[in-house]
Amino acid sequence: MVRRITVVGLGLIGGSLSLALKRSGSSEAELVGYVRSPEAAKKAIALGLVDRVEQNLASAVERADMIVLATPVVAMREIMAQIGPHLISGCLVTDTASTKIEVMKWAERYLPPTVDFVGGHPMAGKETSGAEAAQASLFEGCTYCLVPGQNISSGSIQRMVNMVCQVGAKPLFVTASEHDNSVAGISHLPMVISSALVTTTTLSPSWSRMSPLAATGYRDLTRLASGQPRMSRDICTTNRENILGWIDEFIKELTRFRRLVAEGSPEEVEQAFIQARELRQRWLTKHDKED
Amino acid sequence: MVRRITVVGLGLIGGSLSLALKRSGSSEAELVGYVRSPEAAKKAIALGLVDRVEQNLASAVERADMIVLATPVVAMREIMAQIGPHLISGCLVTDTASTKIEVMKWAERYLPPTVDFVGGHPMAGKETSGAEAAQASLFEGCTYCLVPGQNISSGSIQRMVNMVCQVGAKPLFVTASEHDNSVAGISHLPMVISSALVTTTTLSPSWSRMSPLAATGYRDLTRLASGQPRMSRDICTTNRENILGWIDEFIKELTRFRRLVAEGSPEEVEQAFIQARELRQRWLTKHDKED
Repeated sequence: MVRRITVVGLGLIGGSLSLALKRSGSSEAELVGYVRSPEAAKKAIALGLVDRVEQNLASAVERADMIVLATPVVAMREIMAQIGPHLISGCLVTDTASTKIEVMKWAERYLPPTVDFVGGHPMAGKETSGAEAAQASLFEGCTYCLVPGQNISSGSIQRMVNMVCQVGAKPLFVTASEHDNSVAGISHLPMVISSALVTTTTLSPSWSRMSPLAATGYRDLTRLASGQPRMSRDICTTNRENILGWIDEFIKELTRFRRLVAEGSPEEVEQAFIQARELRQRWLTKHDKED
Repeated sequence: MVRRITVVGLGLIGGSLSLALKRSGSSEAELVGYVRSPEAAKKAIALGLVDRVEQNLASAVERADMIVLATPVVAMREIMAQIGPHLISGCLVTDTASTKIEVMKWAERYLPPTVDFVGGHPMAGKETSGAEAAQASLFEGCTYCLVPGQNISSGSIQRMVNMVCQVGAKPLFVTASEHDNSVAGISHLPMVISSALVTTTTLSPSWSRMSPLAATGYRDLTRLASGQPRMSRDICTTNRENILGWIDEFIKELTRFRRLVAEGSPEEVEQAFIQARELRQRWLTKHDKED
């Protein structure tokens, strides 16, 4: 039974997870939140994100049965090193970072062998960040990736799955390297493309006359460029090789489209767009997505 | 005074324009719609898009004071040639095609000197197409590009502006070459990127394990790939050089991002994302757009 859950970091993801756990009501556990600054503490209390807010990390994780690390990924190494000595035996530790290979290594190295670590990554988010943007429904229907650490007990796996289901998400077990390569393609590549599209267009000498013409299509394609720059940086530094590989694949494919536009017959051009459209439709249908 | 408006082609754009004109109520003009097939005619009547549906082009444009060509762009040349002999003197002809250079040439060549042509392009749309998707509010608040043809009367310009305002859009006068270069950057480049992103990812051997992880970010970035392939083809064939130029600019910029990810310091990477974010925010703010 889980009696105390500590969420470290109450931004969009940590705050939403807390709200979702509270709302589910199926847990009797006390919900403790750790934040660094007095301002963040005040905000977390005002928003009613958790039962108790702590600004001391050791006190926050004291006697917790489950700990969710929801800070920026680069802060996690240090936090694991700090909480390690304060964790009770059998404690389940998880995280919410966008990349998993580095995090799994850190957990292996900094957490004591008496606790279980399961890497986690809810495939949900929005461009607005911070505690104010938190919402209990953020994870509803989303895929929640889980990467079990070494020698983990089946009890911990069960507790992790329960938590994911409680917040309305669907658990998907993957390896860290599969995860990082997959998200590089479907999430990090789009993020880089989106930012590069913004700078390509807005820094053009013609931008002032183009700008009023940009409409919903441009807005959709550039939306990911409005994400948190710090998070984008962390993603690039912790998943470098996979992202580079996907950028190369994409440039190859874009060059194929370029060649078609330059030299292809109208039929060949249309065929390329038909194919892309059908492939996207298949993805939407398979995963019950709506546009 | 406009007594009869004929809309040639009642798909998403033509149908929405008809509905918007009807709704505005400020016009007493009879609204005639031309469609080719009996099925399309039935649908247009059932949806109440226009006052009268014609399947004969000459009858449809007879005694019309204003004609809006809302067919696929490649059909317009033939339509202009066909309607030319049937137009009354002083008639105002306009179109809604996504590219303007070719259309302006055709108008010059195929329409009689007794009529005025103003190229038009409402910067609105959605992925779903066809008469069923038509909605009176489609143009509300959108920019509506206008390219006056040669020797056009100020009366025709006024009538064109009135029509644009009636459907809730904002007229923006541009030259055909400015227009085509601008839309290549903010609309056609995103369309090609979106389709290339779909094929890069879905045709990868890893797609089956990536596919459940793809979420809202992927959906947004690939949305334009669900546009009409025929329309994408027409855009590519009527705006080839501009699109190729923008693809080249984009690949250059993406390569700069690639180099930053590969070799840049974390600070340099973050700075690139900060810049893109700020530039996008400036566009959103300037044009009062919401995300």
